[in-house]
Amino acid sequence: MLPPRSITRIASIGGGPIGAGWAAHFLARGYDVNAYIHDDSERAVFHAILQTGWKSLTDLGLSPNASLDRLTLTTDLEKAVQGAGFIQESAPERIELKQALYAKLGAIVPANVIIGSSTSGLTMTDIQRNCVTPERCVIGHPFNPPYLLPLVEIAGGDQTGPEAVEWAGEFYKVAGKSPLIMKKEIPGFVATRLQEALWREALHMVANGEATPADIDNALMNGPAPRMAVQGQCMAFHVACGEGGMATNLDQFGPALKLPWTRLDAPELTEELRNRMVDGCNEIAADQRFEDMAAKRDAQIVAVLRAIRDTA
Amino acid sequence: MLPPRSITRIASIGGGPIGAGWAAHFLARGYDVNAYIHDDSERAVFHAILQTGWKSLTDLGLSPNASLDRLTLTTDLEKAVQGAGFIQESAPERIELKQALYAKLGAIVPANVIIGSSTSGLTMTDIQRNCVTPERCVIGHPFNPPYLLPLVEIAGGDQTGPEAVEWAGEFYKVAGKSPLIMKKEIPGFVATRLQEALWREALHMVANGEATPADIDNALMNGPAPRMAVQGQCMAFHVACGEGGMATNLDQFGPALKLPWTRLDAPELTEELRNRMVDGCNEIAADQRFEDMAAKRDAQIVAVLRAIRDTA
Repeated sequence: MLPPRSITRIASIGGGPIGAGWAAHFLARGYDVNAYIHDDSERAVFHAILQTGWKSLTDLGLSPNASLDRLTLTTDLEKAVQGAGFIQESAPERIELKQALYAKLGAIVPANVIIGSSTSGLTMTDIQRNCVTPERCVIGHPFNPPYLLPLVEIAGGDQTGPEAVEWAGEFYKVAGKSPLIMKKEIPGFVATRLQEALWREALHMVANGEATPADIDNALMNGPAPRMAVQGQCMAFHVACGEGGMATNLDQFGPALKLPWTRLDAPELTEELRNRMVDGCNEIAADQRFEDMAAKRDAQIVAVLRAIRDTA
Repeated sequence: MLPPRSITRIASIGGGPIGAGWAAHFLARGYDVNAYIHDDSERAVFHAILQTGWKSLTDLGLSPNASLDRLTLTTDLEKAVQGAGFIQESAPERIELKQALYAKLGAIVPANVIIGSSTSGLTMTDIQRNCVTPERCVIGHPFNPPYLLPLVEIAGGDQTGPEAVEWAGEFYKVAGKSPLIMKKEIPGFVATRLQEALWREALHMVANGEATPADIDNALMNGPAPRMAVQGQCMAFHVACGEGGMATNLDQFGPALKLPWTRLDAPELTEELRNRMVDGCNEIAADQRFEDMAAKRDAQIVAVLRAIRDTA
């Protein structure tokens, strides 16, 4: 395999928010990017996402040689992978489609080039089933929006070589991301599982009339989130307990784990629950356009990340 | 009851991180504060917490008349509540102690003064059982550290008057907090339940060898948290789905709620799990002192809050 630092050209496959977001990220880090879209009708959306991402990336600071001129946009898959030292695949989340794509990529991409999949819901063990060179295929799962949030969760499938997983971890770090190499291939990886646990409890509370979506978001934004952005939950408890740290936390509050805090099963997604969630969000949004809310979200994440960085 | 805006003096009961943190908050908002500590041996710790909080509060911006000179520190409970227009109670979390305290407060505090409890684990229905004026007793639960995080969750017990709950919501807002009035009195309120759901899943992952505490914190800090600080989980999904919003999210991803993402029961807190959590946190902390980590946490939360405020 090529040394991670020697990579200069990336192929980003997929024209949706994840694929275009990855293209924006790699361009901002000074890479040449070959972006593959399925057909020309996707060009406008791709460029819109790229521009949105580029604004935030510029605010966060571009790498010295970063330029949108380094982008090549194509509907020719063979052309897209040509000369690429790493492939970031963000095709639609359908297993038959991914398997067919990896069968093709496995044959046309040189065997020493690592392929990383953005999949959030499929396993690499399934994706790589029809690939003739499965040992270099890994999951490299970003967190949305991929051009802003640093996390990339990395996992191999049954046929993935451990050196490919290790290489991906090093490469993503060189490319400006915060890699997390999974100990095992588990559904939802780490971040989505944590978020999903929280989300299920939120749905229970709304279903039971205990809180509204506005209450949920108020609680998160004004409670744990600003802290969690600068200190994960483990260290939050560790530091809050003073000298005794996590030991004090678990020894003192361990029994509280058995208290009826949070519900156990996912709630039935009834029509009523669905509508309460939808209506609640619409009320919060009021007359704001979603593009404006997304733009504001991005600007605020930039500000938060800069704030965290400047105080690190 | 007195108009919330007419309140000028607060009694803060309790010399620990929550009581002293509340004192710091109210002083920073320009109130006179009578702080009650159980005995003189608590003075040093109280002042240390106050100073720590004051630094962050100064960075965030003090109210015009805010001054540490407005503090009266006393071990005399009757003196502490004298002249106070609101009582913030942050005594130790033992039900017998709280019940005895409310029996006394119920008799010595004028009946038109609202008493708010910082309790995180008890219900007001239990706390107010021996109080002769239970109708004005509410829960006003802050999020740690109380001098920084804006959330206050408000709930009444069986004997609490609805007007007391409403008054507390208005008062906390006047006092610079983000109140959340609970629809029902449920254990853990909203924020802690959400955090606890996430925490249980984190413990499961560590117990199963799927992630380390460092992985958990890496995933949170570089994944959902910087976003959640500026956009709650409901609106995060709503906005991420574009025009379709929450409806698209639930209609498309609803079935995924049944996927084995996140575990269902709280894990057995075995000695092994306990030690993995403790060791993992100690490794992350390395040779940093906890005071330094807490100070850095505070400085970063300030920076994040300022960043969020400046981009609002």
